[in-house]
Amino acid sequence: MKIVIIGGVAAGAKAAAKCRRLLPDAEINLYTDDTHVSYSACGIPYYVEGNFEDYQMLLVRSPEEFAQQNIYVHLEHKVSKILPACKKVLVENLKDKSAFLVDYDKLIIATGARPFVPPIKNIALNNVFTVRRIEDAIAIREKVKISKNAVIVGGGYIGVEMLEAFVRQGLHVTLLERDEHIMSIFDKDMAQIIKDQLMALPDRNFEILTGETVTEFIGDNNGVNGVKTSSGREFEVDMVLICAGVVPNVQIAIDAGIALGSTGAIKVTPRMETNITDIYACGDCVQEFNTISKAPMWMPLGSNANKEGRCAAMNACGFPEEFAGILGSSVTRCFRLTMSLTGLTEKQAAEAGFEPVSVIVNKYDKVGYMPDASNITLKLIADKKTGLLLGGQGIGAGDTDKRINTLATALLAKLTVEEFFNNDLTYAPPFSPTIDPLLNAAQILMTKVDKHD
Amino acid sequence: MKIVIIGGVAAGAKAAAKCRRLLPDAEINLYTDDTHVSYSACGIPYYVEGNFEDYQMLLVRSPEEFAQQNIYVHLEHKVSKILPACKKVLVENLKDKSAFLVDYDKLIIATGARPFVPPIKNIALNNVFTVRRIEDAIAIREKVKISKNAVIVGGGYIGVEMLEAFVRQGLHVTLLERDEHIMSIFDKDMAQIIKDQLMALPDRNFEILTGETVTEFIGDNNGVNGVKTSSGREFEVDMVLICAGVVPNVQIAIDAGIALGSTGAIKVTPRMETNITDIYACGDCVQEFNTISKAPMWMPLGSNANKEGRCAAMNACGFPEEFAGILGSSVTRCFRLTMSLTGLTEKQAAEAGFEPVSVIVNKYDKVGYMPDASNITLKLIADKKTGLLLGGQGIGAGDTDKRINTLATALLAKLTVEEFFNNDLTYAPPFSPTIDPLLNAAQILMTKVDKHD
Repeated sequence: MKIVIIGGVAAGAKAAAKCRRLLPDAEINLYTDDTHVSYSACGIPYYVEGNFEDYQMLLVRSPEEFAQQNIYVHLEHKVSKILPACKKVLVENLKDKSAFLVDYDKLIIATGARPFVPPIKNIALNNVFTVRRIEDAIAIREKVKISKNAVIVGGGYIGVEMLEAFVRQGLHVTLLERDEHIMSIFDKDMAQIIKDQLMALPDRNFEILTGETVTEFIGDNNGVNGVKTSSGREFEVDMVLICAGVVPNVQIAIDAGIALGSTGAIKVTPRMETNITDIYACGDCVQEFNTISKAPMWMPLGSNANKEGRCAAMNACGFPEEFAGILGSSVTRCFRLTMSLTGLTEKQAAEAGFEPVSVIVNKYDKVGYMPDASNITLKLIADKKTGLLLGGQGIGAGDTDKRINTLATALLAKLTVEEFFNNDLTYAPPFSPTIDPLLNAAQILMTKVDKHD
Repeated sequence: MKIVIIGGVAAGAKAAAKCRRLLPDAEINLYTDDTHVSYSACGIPYYVEGNFEDYQMLLVRSPEEFAQQNIYVHLEHKVSKILPACKKVLVENLKDKSAFLVDYDKLIIATGARPFVPPIKNIALNNVFTVRRIEDAIAIREKVKISKNAVIVGGGYIGVEMLEAFVRQGLHVTLLERDEHIMSIFDKDMAQIIKDQLMALPDRNFEILTGETVTEFIGDNNGVNGVKTSSGREFEVDMVLICAGVVPNVQIAIDAGIALGSTGAIKVTPRMETNITDIYACGDCVQEFNTISKAPMWMPLGSNANKEGRCAAMNACGFPEEFAGILGSSVTRCFRLTMSLTGLTEKQAAEAGFEPVSVIVNKYDKVGYMPDASNITLKLIADKKTGLLLGGQGIGAGDTDKRINTLATALLAKLTVEEFFNNDLTYAPPFSPTIDPLLNAAQILMTKVDKHD
């Protein structure tokens, strides 16, 4: 049994390890055009921030460790063509410029995603960065240490994480977001609160400007030194980081006749099968579906990639298993502000045919007399007709992600808001108020859904 | 409509407020033999610890605030008899020694619980404290400030909370526990880990001795100065705190012919009705039932009391509502160690007729390269035959209570371990590893339950 895996960050690396455990005798080759394998891309902002000194902390497992399990990892080897009819892939060795064909019985595509690069004038200037790989992390951190002013283009998860990292390294940062809101994965009401709370942080050394489209970078042979926007503003910079979203790496799949989904990522069955026999796909290059709405979704996150890698391996190795879909749970932090959500936003819920009702509550995360009691803002969304919980969003300096994981479990179990209100959540003054904010929110939301007997 | 409420800490105070909202014209009288009403008894350890200076922070709502809502709160008024046949209660004014009869249409008993005082020689000595009321809190805190050595008798929740409080105030503390384990609400394997982890804390200024029964206090007119145990040990002390558990205040209910449950607390229907018409009970004096096993349970916690107070008020006021039972969720902290559990322990599960299987995992609570990554130990319990999740326990310096609330929701929804494994929990390096420890535990536990197709 010959298993070939393309890509090796999270999903590919997980798939390789799992295949080995399932089939001790299989021949497993993993090809990646990357210089590293099996690393925590999600950890890059925390490396840049200076939480740890050695970038090798980001590496989960080395090629040598894979080799000990007879998994052959080929770094800087780009698979440039899949030949499904003869079950081969064409591999180019980027180091010595050689090329060769490799047979597979089962192929697992885990090509991931890459930063979206908007069409901005002079984007090729030095010190205009995107972030995905280990060498990006190293280069950005080195430049950060000798810079004073930076612009970050884009205010999604990576944008706000890098904002904190840069500021903690002493930079003054201007974050420019084209849309009306940063963190637009949240409903607009919550996204507005995020911006307001970030801008209200004391002694902040950053600006967040929304509705600002970058039109041009200015610079010379030394690199970028200015950023111009459509509103006519101009910013002096030592460096720029583009965090304008990511796109799935699917060209090789398209070329092989593999179908994409409506999100632009590879369409897979719950068994992670593509439309071509014996070709599986997993990780940031595949489309997921939402557990609640069953609608296609694309959430390139390490947690999903890991599970999908496992699932693809199970099925490729002949142990059928179905991926249960995703709720869309995610979390991040920017300074003391935690932002987390799960399930459908109010907007997504309406699009999926529900009649969403919602509530936003502002509460302490623990009893008010505890010295570290902090505020959290929770939004809870349910279907008016059935009372089914659809999603939730949490923001605050307080313990927010705890509440969102609790809620994710309620979504997984398809609880109604009334059923959820009966939850017995832990209580002690250092951990929560007597009645958890989630239950406060549920109690109000219950009054907005139709009554059932 | 005349509503009389006996007791006013958590359940009674909540019931009074809820009755007023439901019935704006009802006559509401609340009698308590206590000197305060509507306070956070759970907050006393944090007051003693010095998290805040003013004990009034513990007070949720004053008699004056109640009076503004036409709720008449009568402090230091002891209800000494209930006369169900003529629907009256006998009230004794403890201040002026007067007594009078009060009519009720609906009576709500919220008499709470009191510390259990074991039969120890010379227990009446000065500076031997128990803790329940505000004046206990004030007296203990004052004595703590001028003491050097203390013994705490009993290692349950309050015992370990007060241990931390005393040590943070500069005392050397010896905690003596009669049983083989402290925190015996946990399974023995986890209780042992709690003790080991507490004893492993650096620079601890306390001892925890298990299997030590206190037999005698020694002292003089100045108060206690020594503690003797059955093993022949002797400890010099300036003060002693007895935290040997609590017992429900049910004598007045017994005298009135109100039935108790097998736990010794008042037996109520899910509508918080006692066996006598128009008499409801709620809070620490009533018996709950476990949502999973339906078995009687007695968990005198502020969170339960609050919900029961609300439920009793709903039903007393003619708005039928059923209390859904409890999972047995609770949490506390001792120094950096969080201890939390929900559902059935392995022992309780076996007693309830399940065939429990379990797993214990040791994991980081977040990605290991984050500077504040800490260990957590999670125990997950399921039924072997059905895979139904039955309970979980978490201990650690890491973020444990988040996991237990997530699990509580799974128990509420009656998820199997296999269903739970599909959970989509939030991931980012500052918040959790890529695969949450809960899912690691679930994955292992799945291999221990019978397979179903």
